[in-house]
Amino acid sequence: MSRVSLSRRRLLAGAAGAVGIAVLQRVALTQIQVPPDPTKVPGRPLSALGQRSPFERPRRLVSGVNQGSSLTPLQDLCGIVTPSDLHYERHHAGVPAIDPHRYKLLIHGMVERPTVFDLAALRRFPAVSRLYFLECSGNGAAAYRGPRPDLTPQIIDGLTSTSEWTGVPLATLFREVGVKPGAKWFLAEGEDAAVMSRSVPVEKAWDDALIAYGQNGEPLRPEQGYPARLLVPGWEGSANVKWIRRIELADRPFMTREETAKYTNPLPNGTARMFSFVMDAKSIITSPAYPATLPERGWWEIRGLAWSGRGRVTRVDVSTDAGKTWAAAELQEPVLPKCHTRFCLPWNWDGREAMLMSRAVDETGYLQPTLAELRKVRGPGAPYHFNNIRAWRVRGDGAVHWGLEV
Amino acid sequence: MSRVSLSRRRLLAGAAGAVGIAVLQRVALTQIQVPPDPTKVPGRPLSALGQRSPFERPRRLVSGVNQGSSLTPLQDLCGIVTPSDLHYERHHAGVPAIDPHRYKLLIHGMVERPTVFDLAALRRFPAVSRLYFLECSGNGAAAYRGPRPDLTPQIIDGLTSTSEWTGVPLATLFREVGVKPGAKWFLAEGEDAAVMSRSVPVEKAWDDALIAYGQNGEPLRPEQGYPARLLVPGWEGSANVKWIRRIELADRPFMTREETAKYTNPLPNGTARMFSFVMDAKSIITSPAYPATLPERGWWEIRGLAWSGRGRVTRVDVSTDAGKTWAAAELQEPVLPKCHTRFCLPWNWDGREAMLMSRAVDETGYLQPTLAELRKVRGPGAPYHFNNIRAWRVRGDGAVHWGLEV
Repeated sequence: MSRVSLSRRRLLAGAAGAVGIAVLQRVALTQIQVPPDPTKVPGRPLSALGQRSPFERPRRLVSGVNQGSSLTPLQDLCGIVTPSDLHYERHHAGVPAIDPHRYKLLIHGMVERPTVFDLAALRRFPAVSRLYFLECSGNGAAAYRGPRPDLTPQIIDGLTSTSEWTGVPLATLFREVGVKPGAKWFLAEGEDAAVMSRSVPVEKAWDDALIAYGQNGEPLRPEQGYPARLLVPGWEGSANVKWIRRIELADRPFMTREETAKYTNPLPNGTARMFSFVMDAKSIITSPAYPATLPERGWWEIRGLAWSGRGRVTRVDVSTDAGKTWAAAELQEPVLPKCHTRFCLPWNWDGREAMLMSRAVDETGYLQPTLAELRKVRGPGAPYHFNNIRAWRVRGDGAVHWGLEV
Repeated sequence: MSRVSLSRRRLLAGAAGAVGIAVLQRVALTQIQVPPDPTKVPGRPLSALGQRSPFERPRRLVSGVNQGSSLTPLQDLCGIVTPSDLHYERHHAGVPAIDPHRYKLLIHGMVERPTVFDLAALRRFPAVSRLYFLECSGNGAAAYRGPRPDLTPQIIDGLTSTSEWTGVPLATLFREVGVKPGAKWFLAEGEDAAVMSRSVPVEKAWDDALIAYGQNGEPLRPEQGYPARLLVPGWEGSANVKWIRRIELADRPFMTREETAKYTNPLPNGTARMFSFVMDAKSIITSPAYPATLPERGWWEIRGLAWSGRGRVTRVDVSTDAGKTWAAAELQEPVLPKCHTRFCLPWNWDGREAMLMSRAVDETGYLQPTLAELRKVRGPGAPYHFNNIRAWRVRGDGAVHWGLEV
């Protein structure tokens, strides 16, 4: 094998000695024993439960700003499915320990038949499985409020993840209990120590809301609401109440703390946006991105994620010149509504400084705004919903850094 | 909450006291501490890596028949994505420990430019991510050869799983090295102690074969070929060579041990099927299935998985009367080619004995055969490719057992 010649095209494609974008160097190699030739020793036997290679140690980042969240390492991931143990966390009082045998969901208020469902009952109803993204409405705050060159995709946008969710349509349960015609809102209440509570319009139940008990093929993870949660696809994370124990139907919203003191958006003109449920179209380039460095000129693939709370992403434009010109990226199939969509675009880097940007368009025609556009409407102190165009600056030496306002 | 009335419809839907199909009773509850009221104590803090609820302990089953395989717990799963640590295993000499920094893939033989690719080079090429099933061609052997009432979906068909795979199209690499016109086959060779080797037609590379390095968003798991494997979508598992280190192009197959002594199919007429790559259309009902028991009459949802190595599943028929009559099940979207497809059909059980069956049809028009049809063509001693219709017998007391030839 040492005599194999390396072609010119091979060199262009990233030859031996060139360090790829993927960061392999994090692990202290001295701690890991591997045989010089794996074909000469028997391998590890079968196992009941698999584990990652010791060379791979992806981690959620426990946020320094707010100890109530941990962030998905977007720059380390490929495809659209987020491994369940890396799905972002956002809690208001930690992760409760719930016995699924004692779990109960009460649906009452403006209904004909107030009912308590146990987990077996929920699982017995006709089930659906769908791939949806979740996103905390505070996602993007770090870059919006405190831009620094050393921000990673994980720090900027790590409060979004995608899973295949399985559950019973809330519409099925609402038909079961007989929601009264005058009911316009429902309260969703969690069983955590914050008793997290949000009001949701009844229309969302008739549309696509779920009581989810499955995540990526298995029961929900504790941090995502085990044993059951509300899922309101495309809507801000906090409305997707985890560990759901009670739903109360009413003719008006309940004006809970989490939709008045929190999750309401003061505007520059002195008014406020309330019940700002929908997560607007957004995208971020996850590679190349800080802390990666391009080791050489030539062809690199720009890769990232796009999503919209209004439905399907229909187009992602990519710019390498700070938005002067744009090219349409390829969208990886399947492109699913309210789900992360992977985009990619080959880029021939000429070695000069570049500014990489992406902007998503969804099926409603919504176009991801610039930072200036968003800031004008929402104000510099906006607390939530930061979906402006992101940017990465590529220096002449190949180093990549966050590129907005730094 | 104790005063909430239970409606008649509620009782029909699986009332308190009725045990759902999902088996929750496996875990010794005395070992797990949960607060009586989770809202009264702070929850567990954030974590860098999530873990399952202690009440959930899914496990691969290390096969008693063959210590070279472990089985996915199909009856415990929902949706189509298999959690990576539950993806089935099939090894010929264990799981090798490979240092990704030393990983190399050599492509040589009938090519213009013999080339060694390291992992960074593979990751640099334009990448694709696709959801595909994998299946060992021996999947189904237990039920075909040794039917017993106490077979579970895991024992019968646990050698199939679905992941979102990310990698570089083999066609890209073949263009890179310049495959010569006369090359018709390639050898794929693994870096395990078995030096697992299979011959694959070059056409598969131009179609949809990948060198995969990603699984469900992260690097491949060691048991599935870390750091890189061949993926030949829809083709028998053994041809999807794991830990791939060498590809050699030639004008004919290499006639390795794993396609002559093994993975060749002797037929009743004295001839043999060789290079039987395609996994034919198949389906299995995963619920209700042994060891579940239906606790009462009424509506239950029949759920299962269907897949075809030839493309999309276009229809799944379900019978509750041993194949006398059939009804078309609902297919969960997205229905993807060469990928598990979840099907479901509501069923009103009248309390009498029933025989549940499912049969898949794919986009080529192929219809999953009966056991008698398959056995006639392949013989009772067939070693691989057991895609006959499966059956579950539901007794009058609700107990569910494997229903073919028992």
